[in-house]
Amino acid sequence: MDLISFRELEKKDVEDYFQRAEEMDHQLARKKVEKLDGIVATMFFEPSTRTKLSFQSAAERLGMQVVDFLGETSSLKKGESFEDTIRTVDGYADVIVIRHPMEGSARLASEFAKAPVLNGGDGGNQHPSQTLLDLYTLKKMKGEFKGMNVQLVGDLKHARTMRSLLFGLSMFGANVKLVAPRGLEMAPEAVEEVKKKFGAKLEFSEEIDFAGADVVYVCRIQEERFEDKYEAMSMKKKFTIKPEYLRGVKNDMIILHPLPKIDEIPPEVDKSPHARYFDQARNGIPMRMAIIKKALEG
Amino acid sequence: MDLISFRELEKKDVEDYFQRAEEMDHQLARKKVEKLDGIVATMFFEPSTRTKLSFQSAAERLGMQVVDFLGETSSLKKGESFEDTIRTVDGYADVIVIRHPMEGSARLASEFAKAPVLNGGDGGNQHPSQTLLDLYTLKKMKGEFKGMNVQLVGDLKHARTMRSLLFGLSMFGANVKLVAPRGLEMAPEAVEEVKKKFGAKLEFSEEIDFAGADVVYVCRIQEERFEDKYEAMSMKKKFTIKPEYLRGVKNDMIILHPLPKIDEIPPEVDKSPHARYFDQARNGIPMRMAIIKKALEG
Amino acid sequence: MDLISFRELEKKDVEDYFQRAEEMDHQLARKKVEKLDGIVATMFFEPSTRTKLSFQSAAERLGMQVVDFLGETSSLKKGESFEDTIRTVDGYADVIVIRHPMEGSARLASEFAKAPVLNGGDGGNQHPSQTLLDLYTLKKMKGEFKGMNVQLVGDLKHARTMRSLLFGLSMFGANVKLVAPRGLEMAPEAVEEVKKKFGAKLEFSEEIDFAGADVVYVCRIQEERFEDKYEAMSMKKKFTIKPEYLRGVKNDMIILHPLPKIDEIPPEVDKSPHARYFDQARNGIPMRMAIIKKALEG
Repeated sequence: MDLISFRELEKKDVEDYFQRAEEMDHQLARKKVEKLDGIVATMFFEPSTRTKLSFQSAAERLGMQVVDFLGETSSLKKGESFEDTIRTVDGYADVIVIRHPMEGSARLASEFAKAPVLNGGDGGNQHPSQTLLDLYTLKKMKGEFKGMNVQLVGDLKHARTMRSLLFGLSMFGANVKLVAPRGLEMAPEAVEEVKKKFGAKLEFSEEIDFAGADVVYVCRIQEERFEDKYEAMSMKKKFTIKPEYLRGVKNDMIILHPLPKIDEIPPEVDKSPHARYFDQARNGIPMRMAIIKKALEG
Repeated sequence: MDLISFRELEKKDVEDYFQRAEEMDHQLARKKVEKLDGIVATMFFEPSTRTKLSFQSAAERLGMQVVDFLGETSSLKKGESFEDTIRTVDGYADVIVIRHPMEGSARLASEFAKAPVLNGGDGGNQHPSQTLLDLYTLKKMKGEFKGMNVQLVGDLKHARTMRSLLFGLSMFGANVKLVAPRGLEMAPEAVEEVKKKFGAKLEFSEEIDFAGADVVYVCRIQEERFEDKYEAMSMKKKFTIKPEYLRGVKNDMIILHPLPKIDEIPPEVDKSPHARYFDQARNGIPMRMAIIKKALEG
Repeated sequence: MDLISFRELEKKDVEDYFQRAEEMDHQLARKKVEKLDGIVATMFFEPSTRTKLSFQSAAERLGMQVVDFLGETSSLKKGESFEDTIRTVDGYADVIVIRHPMEGSARLASEFAKAPVLNGGDGGNQHPSQTLLDLYTLKKMKGEFKGMNVQLVGDLKHARTMRSLLFGLSMFGANVKLVAPRGLEMAPEAVEEVKKKFGAKLEFSEEIDFAGADVVYVCRIQEERFEDKYEAMSMKKKFTIKPEYLRGVKNDMIILHPLPKIDEIPPEVDKSPHARYFDQARNGIPMRMAIIKKALEG
């Protein structure tokens, strides 16, 4: 089974991924992972250390082997078509993980490959393994989605994963507050979609206020997105998660971030018990093991 | 046992490779591959996605592990001699696969290494695993070489693998027709050699005509090879395998290509049942498994 | 257990590494290596073919798997902090091998990582696996350190491994002669340290004379280290190990070198029975297997 887009998944599919990831977590904890045979090919046409290493490690934890197609030095440069490149790698591997800057590339790849294709990110479009590990992290750390107060904070217009995350959170009935600077709000059609499809009740704000939040999911604001340099600096400053923002928050509130982070979360915050983004990243392993396994089992 | 040059192999060696590749194919189909222990080092001093991934996958299918010596960032840049580099990698691996732009480099490597050396292509010279997988593909798809009508089509002067392929086809008694634009014909000494050594009866042509062919093996024509730009364009056009060329051919005629292809075979032809080059590429796995195994068993 | 600096090790630790390496050598010779499960991550922020491949091969010989964090194309470039990068990779691997041009980087990494960190070289500072394999080579080839006459020859001021090697040799009571051009002598504080700590009796010379030596350990002299071009050339010439230097030496004298070598040892010398640097490099495998195993066993 391919994994191209989070939005194609039904609730029961996502729950199946959760259950599998949980099982993987148990097997990892007991250091008794059921081994699979086969080869996972990673095809990364743009750098993404984190996603690539995480998929490779997940494959290896499962006892599988990895071949790395280095997108940079590939035959594509010699003029070979994307289609031919996929067909060739398909001849060598049992699972293909692809990241490519072009939107829709992963779906295209899945049409040419017999092996299941896992989308490791296609441009600004989809990055489903990230969304699955984010949701799994929430479930693992906070339990029930119903009644969970989640704030999505930062540039909600451009951040690839935020739209899928909103979709996933709404699917499971969490309460979502969208906190973004003016001009960087979540796309209206994404908001409409979850209202219509899941009856999501959303809150909106331009101001940081973490009171009552169970989860704060932060993403980066890039200066280049503003025309006005002065506004850019003021917004970046406001949306930097300063330690004082954490006064008066719930004791068990958690801060997540897809990583890599740069200056949107200063190092002082890393030491706070609220900061859980490195644990979040670790959940990439059991979830990507689950994804690979489900891909092979169909 | 090293594998440096196809031309050093005797018929019984090639037949042994066929038999081993067939056995590998069976083991792969049954998903029960006899595992080998050990490390294969890939040393690619020029990019070759296909050959490298194919050897790496073959090693991994055999249960072996891979270390990849990245030729680009190597100590060679710091001034280390080729000899020292080979000796060092030889200390870490059980089999060495090397690709290097310099003719004779693989043989040179085999003199310094204790581990068997497999030539993954040395400049315009030899690329024996390609020739072996090509012949294996023909045998697998078409059966007996005796009476098989094979056309080699394109730039027969510069294409690395065509000369070895002619040698191999002649060794097994196939009927070969050499189809090349004027000025890009197969080197006369290669033609003389197979006539003398194997009594090969060859046909020659400058025109495309696939009638009666069992196999059409295409390789690329590069514009740079012509002095006259106009002639270059006209030749490229003529030697592009257009769908209309396939009218009236044998039902079971197959088109092969070493890949990557660029525009010498347009995408429409990929869908034709005659097009078998992706299956050909897949045969790289069992054949390279056979090559690695034979290398270790001597 | 981390391995950051050779100078932190006590004699019994080093002896434990020797014993483990010897056991690994036996297991390799019998082709029956006790397998370990787990992932070794290599994080090389500067190229070092030899150290990286050697650690990767050692991990694979132990049955472990490898993920390679390519420092060049990493998130560090996107502005991620060193700390965050280490924490992320730490989430994927059981052992981290790091090489970074910044002094102290490996120690810093060990503070952020839960997994044991092995220093593969941090700038001009420490390279403990090299020192351990050098000492193991001496022990294996020459037996007892007591009474062993070792000459360290070349640029003793800048060569990373020479200072640690002097420390290790003095720890085990070898007789050391330091042979360097004027201006490139071993740092006085390093000399004082081993005198004080181990009561080392050292000899010093600016002249090449291998008479009486059991071991000659050579390192490279770089022209850039001299202000005077003429002196640089004359020194490079003098410190090149010419075949005539080997007349009258002990029959079983051995020449070692950390490799890669460039012109400080000419190819003629490679053929001499005294030249043992390629065997020395091969000892990197059992010693690095020992290091990884000890790291996991604590």
